[in-house]
Amino acid sequence: MREVSPPLGQDAVRQYLEAKRDEHLNLLRELVRQPSISAQNIGMEACARLVQQMMTEFGIAAEVKPTPGHPVIVGHVQGDSPFTVLFYGHYDVQPPEPLEAWHSPPFEPTVRDGRLYGRGTGDNKGQFLAHLLAVRALLEVEGRLPVSVKFIFEGEEESGSVNLPAFVEREQELLRADFAVTADGGMHPSARPVIYYGCRGILYVEASAQGANQDYHSGNRGGVLPTPAWELVHFLSDLKGPDGTVRLPGFYDGVRAPSAEEEGMLAALPFDGEQFLREHGLTGRPAPRGVDYYRALMFEPTMNISGLVSGYGGPGAKTIIPHEARAKLDMRLVPGQDPEAIFAHMEAWAKERHPSVALKNLWSWPASYTQPTLPVCRQVEAAVEDVWSQPPLKLPLMGGSVPNFVFTQTLGIPAVIVPYANHDEDNHAPNENIRLDCFYKGIETSVAILRRLAELS
Amino acid sequence: MREVSPPLGQDAVRQYLEAKRDEHLNLLRELVRQPSISAQNIGMEACARLVQQMMTEFGIAAEVKPTPGHPVIVGHVQGDSPFTVLFYGHYDVQPPEPLEAWHSPPFEPTVRDGRLYGRGTGDNKGQFLAHLLAVRALLEVEGRLPVSVKFIFEGEEESGSVNLPAFVEREQELLRADFAVTADGGMHPSARPVIYYGCRGILYVEASAQGANQDYHSGNRGGVLPTPAWELVHFLSDLKGPDGTVRLPGFYDGVRAPSAEEEGMLAALPFDGEQFLREHGLTGRPAPRGVDYYRALMFEPTMNISGLVSGYGGPGAKTIIPHEARAKLDMRLVPGQDPEAIFAHMEAWAKERHPSVALKNLWSWPASYTQPTLPVCRQVEAAVEDVWSQPPLKLPLMGGSVPNFVFTQTLGIPAVIVPYANHDEDNHAPNENIRLDCFYKGIETSVAILRRLAELS
Repeated sequence: MREVSPPLGQDAVRQYLEAKRDEHLNLLRELVRQPSISAQNIGMEACARLVQQMMTEFGIAAEVKPTPGHPVIVGHVQGDSPFTVLFYGHYDVQPPEPLEAWHSPPFEPTVRDGRLYGRGTGDNKGQFLAHLLAVRALLEVEGRLPVSVKFIFEGEEESGSVNLPAFVEREQELLRADFAVTADGGMHPSARPVIYYGCRGILYVEASAQGANQDYHSGNRGGVLPTPAWELVHFLSDLKGPDGTVRLPGFYDGVRAPSAEEEGMLAALPFDGEQFLREHGLTGRPAPRGVDYYRALMFEPTMNISGLVSGYGGPGAKTIIPHEARAKLDMRLVPGQDPEAIFAHMEAWAKERHPSVALKNLWSWPASYTQPTLPVCRQVEAAVEDVWSQPPLKLPLMGGSVPNFVFTQTLGIPAVIVPYANHDEDNHAPNENIRLDCFYKGIETSVAILRRLAELS
Repeated sequence: MREVSPPLGQDAVRQYLEAKRDEHLNLLRELVRQPSISAQNIGMEACARLVQQMMTEFGIAAEVKPTPGHPVIVGHVQGDSPFTVLFYGHYDVQPPEPLEAWHSPPFEPTVRDGRLYGRGTGDNKGQFLAHLLAVRALLEVEGRLPVSVKFIFEGEEESGSVNLPAFVEREQELLRADFAVTADGGMHPSARPVIYYGCRGILYVEASAQGANQDYHSGNRGGVLPTPAWELVHFLSDLKGPDGTVRLPGFYDGVRAPSAEEEGMLAALPFDGEQFLREHGLTGRPAPRGVDYYRALMFEPTMNISGLVSGYGGPGAKTIIPHEARAKLDMRLVPGQDPEAIFAHMEAWAKERHPSVALKNLWSWPASYTQPTLPVCRQVEAAVEDVWSQPPLKLPLMGGSVPNFVFTQTLGIPAVIVPYANHDEDNHAPNENIRLDCFYKGIETSVAILRRLAELS
């Protein structure tokens, strides 16, 4: 198919996109300038309204819909074909801390060296805006869309999308579509484009232990008060051993080793171990093999400590017995693992072995997976190649998590992830950024996806 | 001796002290209003100058002496007798965090319910000021002192007094005295006055582990990066087992069980287990026996976590692999334990078993102990009884640490601690306070100590 219909040649839409680059960058700046930190409930309503306003101006029928948490924005445009693609994105961002590590303030988007820096540039504002600008371009240049388009942009992805599953369940009619496409995450470190056919799930648990009614002097009370920091340490060291094995019974239920064919796929993916070490400040350590690296990211779960806090963390010495201790545990789960079942195992196990530790389930998504051989998947591959002039790398899963299970499980439609951001976007970290060329090519890719999907109808 | 010479009857000094109460309280407010947080290097020079200025106004020859860290203030007044008592105190305070837990701002001293609230009210400004006001009272009313007095007030007690040992070593001539007295810590929960003949030592160690060059996304990199938070957890859980036993070889070297006589002393001390539980928010737990409580505070070392920090500690979920993790460990050591030797053991042990964990020795004091049967000790007992109308409780050691080893070891003189603050002063914690009656009686006690010591010459 690809050779007969290059959907983005030197056509009018491409010329339009080139002429509009500065305007598109300014729209992205405007989105990034508006903080929208879901975990801290900062700027959420204002950001939702800003997105809706942009959509309306672009010619998309858009509505801000309330949830028990942060609102969801939905939108749609009728196309020439009844075939409907549903674009998902999220307008919330991660907390920007530690602020002192940013070279320019997180909510003052700044261009340096061909990248736009700011919280949310890559994750996910620059990526979902690309979909919107693609639709706007087609409408302005051609006056119509080749297929029908729906949008769902949520405000809680960085906080576990707690209200998304119920929203999608309730609004199945409104969201009915044939295929879901998400642009999130980063391209391959080799700079090649990527398609992910699924992603790991997540279970995010806060573990806490309480002692006395406040912090006390570690000398005057040392030896006679409960020590929640130690209780938490012993809970954690019991949960995962020094060898990295999770000791929680049931944690590995459903995990399967990759097949020989899958191992072959992983081994075929490009990987530069020295580049990996260099980029992460790990030079001098042994470089991982590519197949081990990809197996760890796609076929193995993690038990990660995202945060650990008790007592005094400032400079110098403060001598207290902290009265509480908290750990934030995030687990990335592979297909077959059930986050709810794992949390139930963890609660029972902690009650038995660490009764002073309380657990709270903050986030719970199963993994999701779509067959790469489906025709819709082939069309997206073709669209990516149209824009990038090389076939995308096909990765079974992404290591990170997006709530694609609401599409594959709740709506029952295939779903893929096509990252538009550079691999070193530093999402969730200081100095998050998106390369400007990635942002512009992302818009072209969304145009190409709509055109390639039209070939199916 | 006590019955022949009640040193503080309805004499002129007592009348003077009663008339001056408001003025004395205002002087304490002035000291507390001046922040002096040694760990954060806030207000140290200004506070040292303020103390020196007060001393000069009180008729005490005072000098601010530099150290490689925060300055020391020394002072002296020649008395009728060559017998010299050296009063020690510290003008630095603990960091005030967490600020939101204070009912009034830490550096805006506020009277509520007969207490002055503010950081440093009890620890140690209200207590060392009592010594100064006692000397001023005697000089103003009687024009002379019964014994000679020296002062040493340091600015690094809350940060390990790192420069005090070298200062005392160098200034032995300047500081030459017969006896050292410190007012620090709190009285007994039964509200009875207390004399401590020694204190536990301290070893304060920062343990840290480093991973990649920054925090990374826990999904996109989960499983392929080092995890310093886990390395720290396994170091800690190896250091001290869930049963509370420290596993570091050599840690217990020199620790001895209390003798039968000492156990008897401990058993004789008043203790209200239910009051202890209630005051610490532990109602419903089993109450400790008094003898176990005091044994833990005086004859057993601790291995406490004062602080634990890695990654994100804010509300909600942030999904990162933290690139570093730090723990602040404070150990309270009993007589016989050698902090330097323990740190050396810890370094060797960590290098062998936890090579990714780095250790830093931030604070290191041995315990100290003075024979309660010495005549100077008996005179202090008598002075306390003069003011409080009941004999003090005699406690072998205080659970907290003051650097008395510079007196008992470096200067080779006996040293006792007579706390003037209420037991619930909440030092090192939010809402630190001193009861006004304790502050006023503290001044009287310092007067009585000077008079009782004169009986020895």
